[in-house]
Order: sequence, then structure tokens, then C-alpha cells
Amino acid sequence: MASLIRRVTFQVGQNPADERTLTLSSTSAEGYFISLRPFIQPKESELDFPFEWAFAGPASSAKITEKDELVKAIDFNFEFDTNVQLHKENTHRGEIKTVWKQWESGLVEERGQVFPFGAGKQAIDFFELWQPLDSTRAEFVILNEAHAGQKEPTSVVFSVDKGDFKGLVVTVGKWAQGILFKKEEHSLKGVNFIRAVEQKDGQWKTLLKFGSDADKFPLGFTATKGSTIDSGALAWEVVESNA
Amino acid sequence: MASLIRRVTFQVGQNPADERTLTLSSTSAEGYFISLRPFIQPKESELDFPFEWAFAGPASSAKITEKDELVKAIDFNFEFDTNVQLHKENTHRGEIKTVWKQWESGLVEERGQVFPFGAGKQAIDFFELWQPLDSTRAEFVILNEAHAGQKEPTSVVFSVDKGDFKGLVVTVGKWAQGILFKKEEHSLKGVNFIRAVEQKDGQWKTLLKFGSDADKFPLGFTATKGSTIDSGALAWEVVESNA
Repeated sequence: MASLIRRVTFQVGQNPADERTLTLSSTSAEGYFISLRPFIQPKESELDFPFEWAFAGPASSAKITEKDELVKAIDFNFEFDTNVQLHKENTHRGEIKTVWKQWESGLVEERGQVFPFGAGKQAIDFFELWQPLDSTRAEFVILNEAHAGQKEPTSVVFSVDKGDFKGLVVTVGKWAQGILFKKEEHSLKGVNFIRAVEQKDGQWKTLLKFGSDADKFPLGFTATKGSTIDSGALAWEVVESNA
Repeated sequence: MASLIRRVTFQVGQNPADERTLTLSSTSAEGYFISLRPFIQPKESELDFPFEWAFAGPASSAKITEKDELVKAIDFNFEFDTNVQLHKENTHRGEIKTVWKQWESGLVEERGQVFPFGAGKQAIDFFELWQPLDSTRAEFVILNEAHAGQKEPTSVVFSVDKGDFKGLVVTVGKWAQGILFKKEEHSLKGVNFIRAVEQKDGQWKTLLKFGSDADKFPLGFTATKGSTIDSGALAWEVVESNA
């Protein structure tokens, strides 16, 4: 089932836990995923690129192994990774092995290691804690057992990979998040994001829009599977939809 | 302003962060507070008393010092403390000094130390992370800047201290939590709790009720200041109300 989770804490190595972003990770019913991690109050040095990180990919970019009812391993190998796209130094490359454990309270911990200085060099432990949300609501409503019987949320995925551009947009419930890279442009001119939420009147409210090609995202975020949505200069294919 | 916060993580000493309770802490507009910490899935050994802890008190039990806009110190000295009431061994007694820091994301960290083996003996660090909620909603809706302009939530406090019993009930928005001690009864027969949430139809739904005298809590959770509410054998005084 499609899901929407919000990060509540991030802890790297021996640093104290903190959370400076409004990170939402969306996963479609078929396993397409995207995580946008914008800083809430970017520092001076972060203003040009006010994001901790962003990544996305299809199900094949996240190999999931169920360990038991509450624990699963996910080995990520992102198709979209801003650290790679922007050639950021001292950031991890390749597979990231993580373990996810659901707490009794419903929150989910993620633990893993990254190797920002290269494979075989120093490992950095990280711990992230996630709050599952009801994606069918435009507010942040904590998901709990009362939601167990609710109908499947909307799950729609748009993909483009043509000419200079490569992008993915995942809509889960009322929440849409998108990423678009200009393939050979490894500066800030090469990365674009969008986050939008559907209002009561059915209109999409843009919460976040970044990048010089952000007008190339779809203008609406639901469509039927197999259709093609033109937006600006790009034709987005709808590769998944239950709408 | 009255507030309702839910704990999302608890970390003691060097143990990993976890959360096994559905802890809600309510604070009235005038500073009466109560925190009930029921286990979600109590272990066999916890079934008789399925609570990590519970405490409560008036504003004078929580000395607040504002450090800056985001940081405050709170020195607690609980009027109601289940560890004290139940004569629990190896638990802290007396003042607990804590520091609260609001994160950019709106979550609030609490750090402090307890001395379960006595003052001057080994200190145990603790870290708790709290999610502020919109108390005017019966669901767990994360509080954010969109709520800044909303009207003051309901804030009503019931108090009793007569004969064998001493109790406090704090209603914040749609959420009521109460604690009632039989003063000289230091067994499980001496502690009672209630947690209730107001439904759309105005009815109060009991989410948690514990103790052999739990029928002595008020039956409704709003009333005007100065009134007296009889419930079972007890007359509760309404010591605060904006209702």
C-alpha cells in the first residue's frame, strides 16, 4: 500500500539527534519512492541549495527483505541522488544497507551506515526516526490503527527519461513529490523538485518548487496509467496509477 | 496557552532510543499539568500496572525559566508521582531539572538527569522527544504554523483533596487526563487514571481507565470555574476553566 512518512529525527554518528528539515518520503503502491529533505530554516551557506538531500527511484532501487513482522532490511541504490548529480564531495556512492524496525508506538526507526569517504573507509552510523502519516489528509495526521480499514490511497507515478531530462513524480494520497534532473548538468541548474498537496477543492497547492526547470513538472498529479502528460517541454509517462 | 504533546522517543543513559508507550502530556492555560504513560503492549511483568510512569501537578510543581525563544528550563517537583505513591524502589525523588529545546521542525527535545539511587549517587541522563499536537482535534494532528492563529483551546482543571483522596484532572481541547491517589494506600489500589477524548457528538470516549476508584473521576470534562462536580463519592472543584 502506498505510504507517506515524515522524518522526526536524524542522528549521525555521535552527534545528538536533531531535525532541521521537513522531510517527507513517499512510496507508491508499486514501490516507486521519493524523499525530499528541504531545510526549514536554511543557514546562510545553505541558501543556494536549501536541501539536506533528495533521492528517488523505482522499486528495483530498493531491495526489501522482510525479517519479521516488524523488521525489514532495505538496500537502496538510488536512481536519482542529488549527491551524485551535484558531484558532492565526501558523500556516499552506491548501495546503502538499512534496517527498518517498527516501534510499538507506530513510529519506525531506520538504522544504517554510509561511507562518505569511499567504500572500505570510515563508516558513519545513522539513525532516522519516521512518523507514518495518513496520506489521504492534507494535514499531518498521525497514522494509527483507526486507519487500518481505510481504502487504498491514490497512487500515481509519472516518469520521464528523454533527451536531456530524467524525472520521477510520485503521488500518494493528497501528496505529490517530484524530482527532475538535467542529466549532464551537474550544477544546481541540473536539479529540480516539487512538493504539492491537494486541497479540499481539488486544487493542488505547491508547497515547494525548486530549480530552473521546475516548470517542466506536470501541472496536475493524478492521471490514468499509460497516458502521457505534457507539461512545458516534457512528456511525462504515467507508469502507475490506481486513479 | 494550553498544550498537548505526545512523546515520540525516550532514551535512557546509553540505551538506544525507543518508545513503548502512548504518552500524552497536557498542560492547562494556567500551568496545571499531567503526563500519563501507558505501555502500548505491556510485557507479562507489566500487566498489573501497565504504565511506565504518571505524574501531575499545579504550575508551582514546574518552575519554568525561559532561556531564549526556543529553550527553557523546567524544574519539576511533582505533587502526584506514581513512583512515590507506589514506593517504587530505585526511582528518583524530589526535583528533576530538565531543559527543553524546540527544534526547527516544531518537535521539542527534553533532556535531564534523574538520580534513581539517591541524591549524590549515579546520575542517569535521559532524552525525550515530543510532538506538539492540535488539542482541538480528536485525531493526532501535528501542530504547525497553520495553527498559529487558532482560538485558545478549552482548558479546564478539576481538583480534589479531601479525606482519603487527592486528584487532578486536566482538560485541554478535546483531551482529558486525570490522576487520583488514595493518599495512604501505597499499593496498586491507591492509583487511578483516566484518559478521554471528546467525539464529534460532544460525548467523551474513554481511552484509558485504570484503578479500583476510577469511577470517582468526573463523568464530563468541561465545567465553569468555581463550580463543584460530584462524581461517585467525590466532589471535584473546578479550579480553572475558560469554558
